[in-house]
Amino acid sequence: MRHRLKDVAERAGVSVKTVSNVVNGYAHVRPDTRARVLEAIELLGYRPNLNARNLRRGRTGVIALAVPELDLPYFAELARHVVAAAARHDWTVLIDQTGGDPTREREVASGIRDHMIDGLVFSPLALTGADLAAVHPTPMVLVGERVDHAGADHVAVDNVAAAHDMTAHLIGTGRRRVAAIGAQHTVEGVTARLRLAGYTAALEAAGLPVDPTLIAPATHWHRADGAAAMRALLESGARPDAVFCFNDTLALGALRALHDAGLRVPDDVAVAGFDDIEDGRYSVPTLSTVAPDKADLAALAVDLLAARIAAPDGAPPGERTVPHTLHVRESTAA
Amino acid sequence: MRHRLKDVAERAGVSVKTVSNVVNGYAHVRPDTRARVLEAIELLGYRPNLNARNLRRGRTGVIALAVPELDLPYFAELARHVVAAAARHDWTVLIDQTGGDPTREREVASGIRDHMIDGLVFSPLALTGADLAAVHPTPMVLVGERVDHAGADHVAVDNVAAAHDMTAHLIGTGRRRVAAIGAQHTVEGVTARLRLAGYTAALEAAGLPVDPTLIAPATHWHRADGAAAMRALLESGARPDAVFCFNDTLALGALRALHDAGLRVPDDVAVAGFDDIEDGRYSVPTLSTVAPDKADLAALAVDLLAARIAAPDGAPPGERTVPHTLHVRESTAA
Repeated sequence: MRHRLKDVAERAGVSVKTVSNVVNGYAHVRPDTRARVLEAIELLGYRPNLNARNLRRGRTGVIALAVPELDLPYFAELARHVVAAAARHDWTVLIDQTGGDPTREREVASGIRDHMIDGLVFSPLALTGADLAAVHPTPMVLVGERVDHAGADHVAVDNVAAAHDMTAHLIGTGRRRVAAIGAQHTVEGVTARLRLAGYTAALEAAGLPVDPTLIAPATHWHRADGAAAMRALLESGARPDAVFCFNDTLALGALRALHDAGLRVPDDVAVAGFDDIEDGRYSVPTLSTVAPDKADLAALAVDLLAARIAAPDGAPPGERTVPHTLHVRESTAA
Repeated sequence: MRHRLKDVAERAGVSVKTVSNVVNGYAHVRPDTRARVLEAIELLGYRPNLNARNLRRGRTGVIALAVPELDLPYFAELARHVVAAAARHDWTVLIDQTGGDPTREREVASGIRDHMIDGLVFSPLALTGADLAAVHPTPMVLVGERVDHAGADHVAVDNVAAAHDMTAHLIGTGRRRVAAIGAQHTVEGVTARLRLAGYTAALEAAGLPVDPTLIAPATHWHRADGAAAMRALLESGARPDAVFCFNDTLALGALRALHDAGLRVPDDVAVAGFDDIEDGRYSVPTLSTVAPDKADLAALAVDLLAARIAAPDGAPPGERTVPHTLHVRESTAA
């Protein structure tokens, strides 16, 4: 049974108007009355009709999640967590696949067409912090890439620490020629630069040389790119005994290339990824990876967005870091 | 260089107002004048400012693609194709992940909140044709599942023929105990029923018995479900020599379960999937699959939607079937 405003009012012994004032967050309600109404709401499990509330406030009840591409399972998994977190605020999430196109990214940061969204959880690829600071009239929380000076809340994993931890794990299993796949030397390649910095720091901490012939670039981070980079590393004569791939899809491509070359994983070459996508739990061999806490990242981003929508000029933009863990599986087992 | 309305008018020797009338599809333009304007538009590569046009017509320039879950790579790949096809109409696509929830599906079929979308490409899971016929005020094209009597355009692969073809391929490589993974006996499981019908027909055509112990159900179609169903088949003593999985993620889970059981693919058990997702081109072994033409499916759906938006009460709803092909890879190689 679904309770209505009237039931809450009766239970709390106040008028319907007073319940409505509490639900809408109006200030002129006495604290003890407010407490009584909130208690009745909780007791009855009353769920305010947020759609009607949104309309009165000029809101749509819709937020957007904008990501470069859903073909990367990381973003598809992130989308599921954001939809779940947004449901707790009674929001509909529409997902915008920008393809990393600057025009699309600008459009979405401006509220899509006619400002149809109340807010935006945004993983930008093309736009810089300065670009975003210039365009964003829509409440916005940035996720994933570290975009400085955007004037917006930002949630990310500590990419340097996470990459360091995985590289140190590979070194700890006795590997001495640890390659890296996924380097990008472009303005957009922020994540790649941070993961490369973590990789380099771990080698240096272990007293190992940073050998440029072991660092393979990848413009995109799909399986095909990982397979191509792995083949190039093998053909170059660099002879890696381990490879840290900057995401799991690169690593799954590398696994396939090693199989095609007749090399055993992890015996000949250990392989590690980043993201903990479902694919790596079922591949042969299963894939060791860095797992960012995606549910935590999504919940933090959505809660920050809710606060920002409620008070656009509230607290100064914040930086939040979500935890990560290493999952050691067959592909790097000692 | 980007041409404007004025350039088209000069080239066609007509007024700007006339060009505008042609671009907006108004009826009161003489056929020869219309032809001259269209020729000038083509020659100059003029691209009308659709956003302004949309506003004048009370349109948003936004369509939605609603799918049950983006975690299934099939839907993520479909989304990419729909975004590409919609770009040719200058439409923004917002993606709605319904989770197969009937309330969400009804909301999206009603135009999301305040009818913020002009149209919908919809892969429903929970709603029946009758449900959809009752709610849909938004121009809509259905994809994937075969939903009868919805009163809407519908694009799909021929699931019966496609499943028949793959099962016949397995029989053709000499397999005699071909199992099926992914059966669903629910109202929603339309795709599962069609693929099971194709599997059954192929066995019967080859004079092989339909053995119920070889048919494994799967409520969901993720890797975990495929692995669990494969383990159950092995433990049941049914002894399949091949398995046709109703999608690729089920098949990737089955591959892993066979590996864990110490069985060789395809030597001991051949494995086939459905969808041709990227994952199956890099797995060890690579996965044989049925490839629906996803680009064709997306383009057909978007073009039908464009026609429906232009003329909501135009032609009666149509049924279109997109072609499929078999990709034979390592997992079923003879």
